[in-house]
Amino acid sequence: MLEKRAYLILLFDFYGALLTEKQRLMFDLYYQYDLSLGEIAQEQNISRQAVYDIIKRSENILEEYENKLQLVNRFQNNKEKLQTALLLIKEIAIIENNNMTNLSELKEIIKDVINEN
Amino acid sequence: MLEKRAYLILLFDFYGALLTEKQRLMFDLYYQYDLSLGEIAQEQNISRQAVYDIIKRSENILEEYENKLQLVNRFQNNKEKLQTALLLIKEIAIIENNNMTNLSELKEIIKDVINEN
Repeated sequence: MLEKRAYLILLFDFYGALLTEKQRLMFDLYYQYDLSLGEIAQEQNISRQAVYDIIKRSENILEEYENKLQLVNRFQNNKEKLQTALLLIKEIAIIENNNMTNLSELKEIIKDVINEN
Repeated sequence: MLEKRAYLILLFDFYGALLTEKQRLMFDLYYQYDLSLGEIAQEQNISRQAVYDIIKRSENILEEYENKLQLVNRFQNNKEKLQTALLLIKEIAIIENNNMTNLSELKEIIKDVINEN
């Protein structure tokens, strides 16, 4: 289970394009740039409460999309399966004394897919 | 590149939950149950034109979501990468005379992820 913050950033990565520009900006400043509500308020010249409301609303929208679509959930499940696949490759590599180039290629592909998610 | 029909069904699989119940029903009858516009019209007791409009509108909505989110595209890319991974496993299996149980397990996991997408 991801912690709340990481989970919201993941949701944003998937569904962020469905937020308004303003929502995206506030979310980004708060979650990705790690600014405080006060700092964002000052920088954007709006009230701290307004910043809070926009971010809360953005979170709700992202969560609603995930509730309906479950695509982050699907990606996460696949990611876990591929982590298991990587462990199996490691086991095979040990048996094979790590001398198969195909195996490292295989590992790279799977890692690539995992990181894309 | 998928043919149009298969592509729309894939989009529906991802974003269908964002359509209204009526849109989902019409889309389903037309694309998954393969009924004609006329048959759907008769069954639903609305005009053929109305059925056509609802389905066209649904297609547009699904395509708009994909344009914004690109999640089907992402899944398809990952799927292709994993197909390559499967080919590599096949090569390894030939070298190893197909006698590693880990390999078949590995194959099953990757197939599982591919089919989920």
